[in-house]
Amino acid sequence: MAGLAERIRKKSLLPKVMQPEDTVQFFRDGMDLGWSGFTPVGYPKVVPLALADYVEKNNLQGKMRFNLFIGASIGAEVEDRWAALQMTDKRWPYQTGKVVQRQVNDGTVRMGDKHLSLYAQDLAYGFYTKQRGGGFDLGLIEASGITEDGSIILAGSIGAATEVIQHSDRLIVEINTAIPSFEGIHDIVMTEKPPFKKPYLISRVDDRIGSLYVPCDPDKIVAVVESTMPDRGRALSPPDEVSEEIATYILDFFQAEVKAGRLPKNLLPLQSGVGNIANAVVGGMVKGPFSGVNVWTEVIQDTMLDFFDSGKLNFASSTSLSLSEGGFQRLYADWEKYTSRVVLRPMQISNNPEPIRRLGVIAMNTPAEFDIYGHANSTLINGSRMINGIGGSGDFLRNAYLSIMHTPSTRPSKSDPTGISCVVPFATHVDHTEHDLDILVTEQGLADLRGLCPRERAREIIAKCVHPDYRPILTDYYERAERLGFERGIGHEPHLLFKAFKMQEHLAENGTMKISDWN
Amino acid sequence: MAGLAERIRKKSLLPKVMQPEDTVQFFRDGMDLGWSGFTPVGYPKVVPLALADYVEKNNLQGKMRFNLFIGASIGAEVEDRWAALQMTDKRWPYQTGKVVQRQVNDGTVRMGDKHLSLYAQDLAYGFYTKQRGGGFDLGLIEASGITEDGSIILAGSIGAATEVIQHSDRLIVEINTAIPSFEGIHDIVMTEKPPFKKPYLISRVDDRIGSLYVPCDPDKIVAVVESTMPDRGRALSPPDEVSEEIATYILDFFQAEVKAGRLPKNLLPLQSGVGNIANAVVGGMVKGPFSGVNVWTEVIQDTMLDFFDSGKLNFASSTSLSLSEGGFQRLYADWEKYTSRVVLRPMQISNNPEPIRRLGVIAMNTPAEFDIYGHANSTLINGSRMINGIGGSGDFLRNAYLSIMHTPSTRPSKSDPTGISCVVPFATHVDHTEHDLDILVTEQGLADLRGLCPRERAREIIAKCVHPDYRPILTDYYERAERLGFERGIGHEPHLLFKAFKMQEHLAENGTMKISDWN
Repeated sequence: MAGLAERIRKKSLLPKVMQPEDTVQFFRDGMDLGWSGFTPVGYPKVVPLALADYVEKNNLQGKMRFNLFIGASIGAEVEDRWAALQMTDKRWPYQTGKVVQRQVNDGTVRMGDKHLSLYAQDLAYGFYTKQRGGGFDLGLIEASGITEDGSIILAGSIGAATEVIQHSDRLIVEINTAIPSFEGIHDIVMTEKPPFKKPYLISRVDDRIGSLYVPCDPDKIVAVVESTMPDRGRALSPPDEVSEEIATYILDFFQAEVKAGRLPKNLLPLQSGVGNIANAVVGGMVKGPFSGVNVWTEVIQDTMLDFFDSGKLNFASSTSLSLSEGGFQRLYADWEKYTSRVVLRPMQISNNPEPIRRLGVIAMNTPAEFDIYGHANSTLINGSRMINGIGGSGDFLRNAYLSIMHTPSTRPSKSDPTGISCVVPFATHVDHTEHDLDILVTEQGLADLRGLCPRERAREIIAKCVHPDYRPILTDYYERAERLGFERGIGHEPHLLFKAFKMQEHLAENGTMKISDWN
Repeated sequence: MAGLAERIRKKSLLPKVMQPEDTVQFFRDGMDLGWSGFTPVGYPKVVPLALADYVEKNNLQGKMRFNLFIGASIGAEVEDRWAALQMTDKRWPYQTGKVVQRQVNDGTVRMGDKHLSLYAQDLAYGFYTKQRGGGFDLGLIEASGITEDGSIILAGSIGAATEVIQHSDRLIVEINTAIPSFEGIHDIVMTEKPPFKKPYLISRVDDRIGSLYVPCDPDKIVAVVESTMPDRGRALSPPDEVSEEIATYILDFFQAEVKAGRLPKNLLPLQSGVGNIANAVVGGMVKGPFSGVNVWTEVIQDTMLDFFDSGKLNFASSTSLSLSEGGFQRLYADWEKYTSRVVLRPMQISNNPEPIRRLGVIAMNTPAEFDIYGHANSTLINGSRMINGIGGSGDFLRNAYLSIMHTPSTRPSKSDPTGISCVVPFATHVDHTEHDLDILVTEQGLADLRGLCPRERAREIIAKCVHPDYRPILTDYYERAERLGFERGIGHEPHLLFKAFKMQEHLAENGTMKISDWN
């Protein structure tokens, strides 16, 4: 592995190399900070942890608070440490970590959440930090190195690092010497402001339209710090039976679409979210009948390496390599083989409607719940409690050739193994509307909503997706609503509005959504 | 005005000229029909009315029913006539007309609704008529003429006419000889399927990337019919005080954004929806300080002619000229002046995220209601009763540089002049999510939501947008929800979920949303 001095090709920056604890001087309470990092990969580690040590040692809890603008999630060892020390005030966007999640929901942390492609763009437009005229006081970046002209070679993710580097007054660059340089894997395009924006001329997933490096004024770099801390990454649990059943429905659907002439034999570029079902789908692709497949997504997980190994995956474009520790070892061991078929792009590009629509991406994501008309909740339990955030699900689902959401039909409550139905009369929060989704899948079956009116959608969803324990309950809801709706001339999308959350209320009071009737 | 023979430049089509009533032979019960037409302009008239006469005369009500796939609304004289004769089964997308609206809501008509750019694209992909392998049995097109090679010169709107012409087995073309030919005003790009889609290389509103004509296999044309019926168009009522107040807030906001360097002096291309507030905003622009302004929108209304006349509007791109009868007369009287600065595009392009994001459009639309966290309902009263449809509001609001929604803060109920608050705790239907909207405006004020977390958004919306009659009620809701949410650790976006629709319930029972308390 190349050492720190070799990674810093612009030698005039060598005097700025310092120890993590020496960067504390650059932080002030109330600062707006931009960070690299996406789905715990490529985020700064030793600098934020050194600042946390300083806060802890000096009893500054609650006296050094920051507004964090990051690509997406960062490792819990950093995220939760900062939250526990009351260092996190605003936090945009998607987060994971038990402490930060608790604080988002108890009022300590002010979390903002937006479609990732818009969020990255808005950072460049200066919308979220407009009090200071846009941009950030300080940017924290994990990098592989710095080029001769001061440009930055990023590491295992891009996320919003491009916008952070461009719009920070000052930058601290962590160079991770414990991992190989990722030089060559990135395709960097900066976010311009209108009316000067240019087309993103990507017509194939492997098209490159940018450069390998993020341009950077080296005078903005106030510190370069060596890091040897690994990325947290994301380990996967083996797919369970329910996920396998869902994956089978989806693969059968793909085959039927190919047969009907609505998909080419190698499908169209796949996007799949994080989690068990996504992995089961990719696992199914490894064994499945499709070859020459492409991927256009925001996270590449371990199963994607299996997909490459199978010879069936042609190329993958992403903004992050969200691998497990073992996955990274596989990647490093066979570096050329994998990285010749992977490109990492800024999330403003990976998640941009322009390439997603042009390429005709097939989008697959897991919601917390969806309703009988096809609205999906990805973020807020009971419309109130934040889980992680919307991530890129809206970017992909709104613009996909086929928009697919998949979830188990039920989840266990404390007292009932099927106490929570993931299909409800009325979503308690809507991140994806009925105008956005084509296909809904549970282990019960697949509902194809294309071309259906709301009432047809409801019947299809209840018949195909709802768990048998809830089918009579939802059928009864729908039929009562339809009857009253037609009578009153308000039945386009029939609801018993004032009873719409009765199942959730019953769950809160009785530990299960199984109500006896709708009276 | 050129007569019919001059309009049909491909002379081999002359034998296919026939009277409207002679086209009845081409219709069969259950057919999938594609129509031209958008915001009652450019829709077929004499042919559908002749068929209606036939159905009426022969007592075929309910025995000749059709699935209609149209750009957007068509004139009520056609829409409601068909509905009254039970000729409309499926109806996609946006509709206006009292009879069809009643039937959409009493279960007679199966209406589908989707973001217009996606809808047009899905027509080309064959999703909504997949039972027959995609496409339409018959297409009905209003045109200005037919070229030497059989290509079609459209009239005052494009909408989805391009997809209809391309994907119909047979076509009936109505040539309207009572209006000038619109030849020269169109910029036609056809919808390709992935993986063969190309970039839409529009970087300025006046860029042209297509041709003047829609390519068409002349053998598909089974009938050419002369029409002299005018477009219904859309008359405007003069702006009221509330609309003027809202427009003033918006224009002041634009000035502040220019001053802050977040908008150029000539702003960015404007999109404004239909209705009083949109007209008041454009009216304000006529008198306002901005010049060299551009418009990128889906409908050009009468006030846009005033905007041109003021010398402050540079260029307008749209998919439809939705003028009143008087507006059309003004257009025809000064044809060169106006049409040299206007281009009409297929709605798949006018509403496409690609140019909307690249150009940095400022989107302004009116919802039926929005909630304290910034979710908006554009389509369904009480989550059930369809008004018109989502139209292009989602295409523009999701992708705009600035996403603005505006509405009066209240509407009258039967018994209370402010009986309905347009700001509610929880939207009864969500077409636009909290992740999509930047700015909300009522006659009470303007809430700038950029960079705010949900709790900050709620306070901002209640303070700036809510009518004084409802401010205490919504403040009480929010404060109770926040207190309970923080206590229970579910307070990211605090709700009293099981009481969220109490104001609507009170309205249904008591004729006003003014509840006395939240217990």
